[in-house]
This record gives sequence, C-alpha cells and structure tokens, in this order.
Amino acid sequence: MTAVETSPLIRKLSAFATLSTGETALMQRLHRRRKTFVSGRDLVHQGQSEQAAYILAEGWVCSYKLQADGSRQIVDFQIPGDFLGLRSLMLRVSDHSFEPIGSIQASEIMRDELLDTLGRSPRLAAAILWAASRDEAMVVEHLVSVARRDADVRLAHFLLELSARLALVGIGGREGYACPLTQYHLADALGLSAIHVNRILRRLREDRLVTFRGGIVRFDDYDRLLERADFDPAYLDHGGPVLG
Amino acid sequence: MTAVETSPLIRKLSAFATLSTGETALMQRLHRRRKTFVSGRDLVHQGQSEQAAYILAEGWVCSYKLQADGSRQIVDFQIPGDFLGLRSLMLRVSDHSFEPIGSIQASEIMRDELLDTLGRSPRLAAAILWAASRDEAMVVEHLVSVARRDADVRLAHFLLELSARLALVGIGGREGYACPLTQYHLADALGLSAIHVNRILRRLREDRLVTFRGGIVRFDDYDRLLERADFDPAYLDHGGPVLG
Repeated sequence: MTAVETSPLIRKLSAFATLSTGETALMQRLHRRRKTFVSGRDLVHQGQSEQAAYILAEGWVCSYKLQADGSRQIVDFQIPGDFLGLRSLMLRVSDHSFEPIGSIQASEIMRDELLDTLGRSPRLAAAILWAASRDEAMVVEHLVSVARRDADVRLAHFLLELSARLALVGIGGREGYACPLTQYHLADALGLSAIHVNRILRRLREDRLVTFRGGIVRFDDYDRLLERADFDPAYLDHGGPVLG
Repeated sequence: MTAVETSPLIRKLSAFATLSTGETALMQRLHRRRKTFVSGRDLVHQGQSEQAAYILAEGWVCSYKLQADGSRQIVDFQIPGDFLGLRSLMLRVSDHSFEPIGSIQASEIMRDELLDTLGRSPRLAAAILWAASRDEAMVVEHLVSVARRDADVRLAHFLLELSARLALVGIGGREGYACPLTQYHLADALGLSAIHVNRILRRLREDRLVTFRGGIVRFDDYDRLLERADFDPAYLDHGGPVLG
C-alpha cells in the first residue's frame, strides 16, 4: 500500500465507497500540492473570494465565523481527512475562516480540479457529497447542542464525536486520543465560558468518565460516558461502504 | 417555457450554473413522482433507513431533530426548490425529520436516481453540491444566531434570510412574502420562547421595520432592518452563475 492509499481522506471516503485503483489515483491527484501552515495565520478568510480549498493531512484546524462586534463562534474542528473550505469552494465567497491549531499539512485544491474530478468519477462525486452531508450533520448536532443540551452533556457529546471521527481515520478510539485543543477552544465551540468548561471537565474526571489533561483525552469509562451524553453516532455514518 | 423549466429547483440551481436543455431534462426526470403531503405526518423520520429524498415544489416544510427527552429543535425550514433529506439520502440513516407545514407537493427521489444523475452530468453534480453547501451555510448561520446573536437580531436575521431565499425562487422580495409559520415555529427554530418572539415582533413592528401578521411578512423599512440585523447575504451565494 502506498502512502496515498492510506491518506486519511481516502480512508474516510472508504467508509462510503470501496474505491477502485483508478478512483484512488484520481484522489491522489488532489493531494499533489501539499503545504505546511502554522497557527496564527488563517488558511481561508471569511469574505475571501477565489479561494482554494484544502485536504487536511496532518494536524487540527478550527473553522469559525467572526461577528460584527469582533467575537467569534467556532463552527467545527477539522481533523486529518477533512476538507477545509469545500463549502466555500462552491460558494463564491468564503462564509467562514480556517485557522491551523499548531503546525498542519494540507493539500491545496482549486474549484476546477474538484469539478474535473466530479466529472471523471460520479462515484467520487457521490463520496464527496457524502462527506459534505456528514459535515453538515455535525454542524446540525452542534446547533442542537448549543440550543438544547445541558453543558455537561454538550461537552461529553463533543468529546465522543471527536473520538468517533478520529477512529474512522485511524488516530483514536475507545481508549482516547491526542487532542491539541485548549479549554478556550472548547468554550468557543460550545458556547460556554472557559471557567465553566474547566468545572465540567473536573466533574467528568471525578465521576471517572473521561480525563482531559496534558493534550490527551482518556476515556475512563467509555460506555458510561456514551450513556451520559446520550450519544448516538448514526449521523457520522460509519457503517461501512454503501457503494461496493 | 414549460412548467418544468420554471420549477423552483431548476430556477435555484440556475443561480449556480446556466443549465442546458439536456441538463434541464435530467432534472425534469427527478420531478416525475410528485406527491401531496399534509401536515401532521412526517415525510422522513429521524432514524429511518432506506428513505427517499424529495424536491419541494409547493409549500413549506420544517426539518427538526428530536431529543431523548422529547423536545425538538427545528434546524431549518424548506421552501419550494429545496431538497428534503438530500443529506439523509447519502447518510444511511436519516439524522432528522421533515414535517409539512400545511399541504405541500414534493417529488420523490431515490439514491440510485440521484447517483445516476450525478453520473450523467458533472455540472449538475457540482450544482447539487452547491445547493448542499448553501444548506450547510444556512445551518452555520443558525448556529451562530443561537449561540451569539441577541434575540431581536436573531429574529430579524431569520426573516431576512427567508426573504432572500424566497426571492431566488421568485416568491418574495424586498416588500415581503407570504409566510405560513407560527410564532411557535419561530420560537423553536430560534431557541426563544413564543412569548419572547411575540414581544420582539411587536418591537420590530413599532420600530416600523417589519410587520408579521395574518401570514404575511411585510418589510416596512428593508434597508434599516438589514442594518439592524447586520445581515450579509453572501453565504446564500446569489451572485449569478459561476458555471456559464
């Protein structure tokens, strides 16, 4: 197996469709222009037009929207195998910004390259539409979390969602995962204060459910946390290929 | 012009791509199985698998997620030209429910028919990915609204978004639009109480910005409302065809 066949995006899309050698090669072409980015400089700015999209290969990214008053709302975090700005590539103007968390590696793709790939393989078109649908399902969960879920359920749900997403690309599981997020990231994403996040993390740790310390999320009792968070991962659609 | 050429979905997709006769005919095939649905019975249920998706031709629909405690969060409303359950068609299990508001007409499509269409026209594949991207951008706006916007800005933003969406399919504009939503719908979608919605609507009316009464939203001062809501419609991407 080459390095590309194990690229996180190809691994992720394989949850939807069993990719042929030709389809894998087409995806490989989208990975040509791999670049390194560091925190403090956004890959894509809200309001930018003619922007590129990226396929994230290494590291984490946060996507956010700025408000007129300068405050920001984190919409989601991207992990290896995720598109950055796929939505913005189709819409003319990017409706949000992407900021690397630490140092990351990502491959740049332009709209014409994406359209060319859609044209060469309707199965890849379906797989990319699947990935976009899954991204939207996550934003819907975040909306429900902020609008309806108690703060501790919200945080537990968030940690479990990340665990399932990371497991799909082979970098995490029921034991836990490396997590570069700060409590400020969590607070921004979940609509809580950093102090509140800190308090909930302490409670979840004292209840022996999950411990987040030193950049590691460790599940102390995964099944009990699932129950506490009422977490049903169906929206992440990890059931194995629909297209054989 | 035939009835199908003016179907709201074809009209909407024309904001992204100038469709050829052949592409219009392909879309027309997706409109074959048109059915009537009435309120009180969901088209698609959360948790349902092997479900169909629909193209809404007439009427309004609300999409929502149920919580374990039985409460619901409205994610969005669909208007003519919108897909219902496109995301669920790609994900195996529907992650939300769709409920008609009054009587509606919608055309049923199955996953294979959609994939066949993607295969026959990469430009339509791109146009459908555009529509999905735009839907996601709206959910992101709703997340930002619930998490960050003051209640009156939230409501004003919502009424303006609907106005722009309706204008794109030719059934509304800067004067206003017919709106079948109740104050309970608005409250559920915006994370407010119905009493709070009522109070804000009164204030917006007294400020001569917008009047919502008797099923009609009438903009009393569209430009001043835009300013009040800090509404930037760029995320709706109505700038005219990207693909000629």
